[in-house]
Formats: sequence, structure tokens, C-alpha cells
Amino acid sequence: MTESSLRIGLAGLGTVGQEVARVLQLGKPGLDLVAVSARDKNRSRAFMPEGVAWEADARALAQRSDVDVVVELIGGADGVALELAEASLMAGKHLVTANKALLAGRAVELAQHAAQQGVALGFEAAVAGGIPVIKTLREALIGRKVTRISGILNGTCNFILSEMTEKGSDFATVLAEAQALGYAEADPSFDIDGIDAAQKLAILSGMAFDRVPSIHSISIEGITAIDAVDIGFARELHHTIRLIATVEARDDGLVQQVRPMLVPNHASLAHVGGVTNAVRIEADMVGELVLMGPGAGGAATASAILSDILDIQAGAIRPFFAVDTAALGTQNAPLSPSDQRWYLRMRMADQSGTMAAVTAIMAAADLSIDSVIQRGGDDGDSHLPVIFMTHEASWDVVARAIANIRGDTRGIRDIVALPVLD
Amino acid sequence: MTESSLRIGLAGLGTVGQEVARVLQLGKPGLDLVAVSARDKNRSRAFMPEGVAWEADARALAQRSDVDVVVELIGGADGVALELAEASLMAGKHLVTANKALLAGRAVELAQHAAQQGVALGFEAAVAGGIPVIKTLREALIGRKVTRISGILNGTCNFILSEMTEKGSDFATVLAEAQALGYAEADPSFDIDGIDAAQKLAILSGMAFDRVPSIHSISIEGITAIDAVDIGFARELHHTIRLIATVEARDDGLVQQVRPMLVPNHASLAHVGGVTNAVRIEADMVGELVLMGPGAGGAATASAILSDILDIQAGAIRPFFAVDTAALGTQNAPLSPSDQRWYLRMRMADQSGTMAAVTAIMAAADLSIDSVIQRGGDDGDSHLPVIFMTHEASWDVVARAIANIRGDTRGIRDIVALPVLD
Repeated sequence: MTESSLRIGLAGLGTVGQEVARVLQLGKPGLDLVAVSARDKNRSRAFMPEGVAWEADARALAQRSDVDVVVELIGGADGVALELAEASLMAGKHLVTANKALLAGRAVELAQHAAQQGVALGFEAAVAGGIPVIKTLREALIGRKVTRISGILNGTCNFILSEMTEKGSDFATVLAEAQALGYAEADPSFDIDGIDAAQKLAILSGMAFDRVPSIHSISIEGITAIDAVDIGFARELHHTIRLIATVEARDDGLVQQVRPMLVPNHASLAHVGGVTNAVRIEADMVGELVLMGPGAGGAATASAILSDILDIQAGAIRPFFAVDTAALGTQNAPLSPSDQRWYLRMRMADQSGTMAAVTAIMAAADLSIDSVIQRGGDDGDSHLPVIFMTHEASWDVVARAIANIRGDTRGIRDIVALPVLD
Repeated sequence: MTESSLRIGLAGLGTVGQEVARVLQLGKPGLDLVAVSARDKNRSRAFMPEGVAWEADARALAQRSDVDVVVELIGGADGVALELAEASLMAGKHLVTANKALLAGRAVELAQHAAQQGVALGFEAAVAGGIPVIKTLREALIGRKVTRISGILNGTCNFILSEMTEKGSDFATVLAEAQALGYAEADPSFDIDGIDAAQKLAILSGMAFDRVPSIHSISIEGITAIDAVDIGFARELHHTIRLIATVEARDDGLVQQVRPMLVPNHASLAHVGGVTNAVRIEADMVGELVLMGPGAGGAATASAILSDILDIQAGAIRPFFAVDTAALGTQNAPLSPSDQRWYLRMRMADQSGTMAAVTAIMAAADLSIDSVIQRGGDDGDSHLPVIFMTHEASWDVVARAIANIRGDTRGIRDIVALPVLD
């Protein structure tokens, strides 16, 4: 309960940085914003901190003798953000960051610097915004054996899929709507291709399983292939389609995936709508914990930053990894998931024998079918959508079946395979 | 990151205590179980710690010079638990407890002792078992202005209501089933009358709103009046009935209730089944956080105890209240909730004019009706169930209407009023 006084240097004055500065300047006892840096000092901002030093080069914050904590909100996997982070830690300053790209790539080096200097590396804001998932994993569940984490970690994708589900709209329409609302970037690929979620998953996997975080060990697929017909079929099957990031411990390593999945409607993650994020953690002793909340947004992310700063003030400094970084496991390629159930959608020309041919190919590939839905289409496509729900099968089996179906000459197209989350 | 070595004295060797002892004796670095106490040393136990001192009187743990942390798992609002807790803190030992009754009644005194001695008072296990709700409130949301907390805090009631919902069984049948499964006590009143949930709510309200915890300021109603017909009607209206503990900050004080409510099916809390607990926290900056997980059980509760011990080891000691105990607000009577929507169920004799009379009474009481469901009954009761969903109204208005309906001579009975959670 010995609370120290902390002097803070803030790099980045976007929506999150402005919120952090605003709250700090409300006058928190023992917290003092002393210096800030941003690319453009003269940009019009909703909040501009007053009475603080201004550094044109953010990296100068690491050298200021009057700064105890550097808050890095610049973003990016390298460049100024990396240089500032490393220099700050090496100068014995605590670092608080919301930078997922930086941590997904450099967590080990940064954790080493922090440990050597005995300072904190706070990153609650880097994963799932205002949800205290980092605190839960590295404090509440310390000592627990985590077996699986499954999360909705990208608000943009969840908004798009939720809107498609609620309104029956198609992907392109909802993407444009998300862009208009500011939920998707002009170039949305970082979100909709699953990269953002994969960076966050790499961080969670690293800290929960003591591995060097690596997005190269994650099998990644975005949501661009999801069609309104998939949403409808999934609903009919009492499932909801969500972009799920999941990591599971197996004897041969971590199985990490980011991909759209069918989530059964009885599961908590099926009811996470809009830009909300959620994380389900399975571990020994506790069974299953689910945390839901705001995954992004200036205020929620700033709240996570502030909670990290207040942890430092309270003297509660925890290491990034539960083991020494020399003892971390590494893995640089994705492992194929264990057998799971699959939703397979394709479009078939309405000609006799097509269904028989497809089911024969699936049988030959050892892909066992649980149910089929085929229905007259009303979407103006001459090829009608058909979906198959399979029994549990490996991706190898599914991939072989798909390749053979594609190789068939009957004009089957638009094949999509989505696993079912259990 | 300076981790101290801690010597632990454990009072209580029930299912939780055995789990705590088992994990400690697996050999956690820096954690040493040195002494235990339990009512009956010779009782047959799944796990019995070895190589530790045995104290016949738990209170002796507070006086042992070789104990740094006392873990209190005795239970009860006073008696040995209270004496042990006070003596331990006053002797400068950290206290970790799962005792909700103790904290609901004595949090202020215990917090004062802890602050004076500079030791920790850990109580993550006292509310919602394995869900890190205490950590979230006092660390992740430190500095936030919490506006409302709504929780499913009693696993027994949630199991009963879930089973009634899933199987259509009546209350008595499911209660007997819960007793057979060990989810309900032989005397279930502490759970089904809402007292257990109210004690937990008192703790959350106290710490989140800086009030002296008081169960006397909570309006409490249990689940015994809930009938299978209510479950069915609620479902028809796209709601689920749950025992909800809720606290809301209002200008004139805290509005605290524990009662069965209709939870809209689009809300996260509607999907919390079985003995699972859940807490929804609304606060500035973050909006809404929802945490779900195991609310009880030996292993999950032990995990929360261990997390408190490891926080102490990491030097992360937080006060119970965010302000000095002298600055705490007090409130000793329940405040009436703000206007809310109501589900009103009653049974009417099937005779002409009854419905007209009831609706006239409701109109005269200014209770405005949104919808009515009346249907031929098949449950063999000569009086048929009728339900009304009202527009927003105060409890005063609803109570007046109910009193007048009861005063009517047409033989209306079994009136139940449940608010709708928004």
C-alpha cells in the first residue's frame, strides 16, 4: 500500500492518447503527466494537455530524467515505437503500451529488458481493449494450467458478422456501413483478413503458454468469403458465425487458428454482438471463464492504460512470461487442428447427378456427412447453395475432399469450409 | 518483481481447504504451508496435508511467529472466524478469506486493521468463486466510476431456474434434484431466499461505491414463488428468469436488490446456465464488462485463494475500499428502485368480468399495461394463469395495484411481480 508518485511521458495523442492525458490531467494523486509527443503538434484535437513539455521526437521521452513511465501509443511493429520501447526500458523506465504489433513481434526482447531493469511492461490495452484479460491471465490465473483460449478479438469483424446476421445484408454492404461508422478502416484488410486478431492471439498464446509469440505459428483466414447464405444456414443450424481466435495446448505444440467458425448458439461467444470482444479461457481448477467487453475505442483502451499505470504505482509489477525468457518454447509453423466438425458450403449447378457426385467424393475422402441442406435459391445465382455439416474430421481430410470436388467437372464453385467451435 | 517467501497457516479443511493445501504442497516456490487447523483432525479427507503443524484452535494460527499469511476458510459471520481474522490482521499477518458473511458484516473493521498493519486483506474467493470480479473492480477498474453492477451470484438458484427452464419441471422437483447433486443444502433457505447473493452483493457494493457494506440496505426476495408457468411465459416473451443481484448508484444512494427478474434473451446474463455465476459491471470509459465463470466448487474457490496469496507474494497489496474507511458512506435501508418494467402473474377464476376488473384496478393505480397473455390452462388448476407486462412503473405503483387486486372479491390469487432487467 506504499504508493509512489509517478511522472508520465506520453507518446501519441490520438483518441486513446487524448483520453489518457485528459484523465491524468484531471489530477490523479501521485500521477503527473510531464511530457508528451505526437507527430503533429498543431493538429486539431478534442483534448490537448496543458503545462507539459513537448518532445518533437518521441524517442526523447526515454531520455528524460523527469519521466518514470513511458506510455507508447504510436503503434507499429518497429520504427519509432520499437526504438522508444527499448530505449525506455533500458533507461529503467516502466513501459505501458497498447501496441499489439510490437508485442506480437518483440515481446521477448522487451520482457528481457524489463526484467533486467526491474521495471514494468504493461500491455493490458494491447489485447481486447477494456477487458482485463491480461490481468486475468497473468494474475488471477497465475499458476493455473491453461488448456485453451478462444476469443472474439477483432471488433470490426464482429460488427460485420453481427450486422450480416441481424439484417441479412451481404458482406460488401456491411463493410461499407462499418467504414462509414468508423468501425473499419478505409483499407480494412488488416482487420478483415484476420491479422489484427492473430497479433492479439500471439500475445495471449505467448503469455499463457510460455512461448515466443509468433504469428507465423497461427493458421489465419479472414471473413471475406462469408456470404449472407452462410449466415442464414448457420442460423438454421442454431449456430452463429464469428471470427474466432483460438489456441489449444496439444502434446506436439500449440494449435492456433484465426478463422470464421460456427459457434453453437448455446455458447457464450455466440451472443457477443457488435464491436464487443470476448475471451473464453479454459484452465485447470477454474474450468471456464468468459470475459466480455469493449475491445477498442479511445476511452476503453485508455482505461486499460490507466489501470496499468496504477498497477505500477501500487508496486504490482508482473513479468510478461511466467518463466525466464530463456525457457520459452518456440514454434514457427501452424499445427493442424485436431478433428473438428465442419460446415461446408458450395454452389452447385442445378443438374442431376451433381449431389451424388459430391457425396461420393466426400465418402471417398473419408469425410462423413451429418446433415445436408439444399434449397431452391432466390439470390439470382444459377448455382444453388448447398451445405453439408460433417462429423469430426481433420483439415487434411476436408482439404482432400474440397480439392477433389473442385477437380470435378460439374461446375461446383464457391466452396467455403468453416469449423464448428466446441 | 521481488517475490517474498510466504509461510501460510490454513484454517478449515473442507473441500476448498483441502484443494488449497494440495496445491501448496505440490511445492510452489516460495510458498510454504506450515500450520493447519480444522474442527475434526480425524475426519476422513480426500487430501490431508503432511508435515505441517496442527492447531486444535484455529485462533492459535494468528499467534504463530512462523505464519505470514492466514487463510480463513471456517465461515460464519462471527465466532472463531471473526476472532481469527481480527487477531491475524492485528498481529501483522496477511489475511485471505472466502468468508462472505464475515465481510458483509465486518469489512470496515477488517479493512482498518489491514491498513493499520500494512497487510493484505484478500477476498477474491468470497464473491463469485473463480471469477476475478474483486480483482477487476479494485484493480482493472480502479479510478473508474462504476454506475451499476448486476450479477448472478448464487449458483444454487441459477441451477434451479436453469433446470426449470430447460426441463419445464416445477420448483420442488428441481430443488430436490439440486439437493441430490449437492448443489443445494438440506436446508436450502440461505440460498433460495437470496441471503447468500445479498451478502455477496453487499461486498461488491461496498468496495465499488465506497459504502459500509450492509445487507440491511438490500431489498431481498428469493425464488420460491417462481412457478413453471412463469418460466414458460417468460420464454414466450423472449426472456429468461434469473435471480439477479443488482446495485445502481442514484443521487439519493444505492439501489440494491436481490430478486428474480426477467432477463431479456439478448442480454449476456440470460445465457448463464447451471451453477455458473456472472457479473456485469457498468462504468465510465469502459461501458460494460461481463465476467462469467464458476461461482463455487472447491477447486475454483481454491484457485481464487491461491491468486490472492500470489498477489501478496508479488507485493501487490490493495486496500478493500478506495477511500479511507472514515470517508465511507452508510445506508441502512433499501431504496426503492427507479421505474422499471414489470412482469405480473396471477391466477384468475375463469369467470366473466374478472379481467375487466383487474385491468380497471391497474388503470386506477396508474399501472400501464404493455401486453397480456391469457391462455387455457392445462395444469389442473381451476384458476388460470394470466400475465401482464407493464410499462415502466415504480414499485409503489405496482404494490398499490397488487393490494387492490388482492382486495378484490373475484378470487384472484398467486400474484407474483418480477421486474425486467434492462
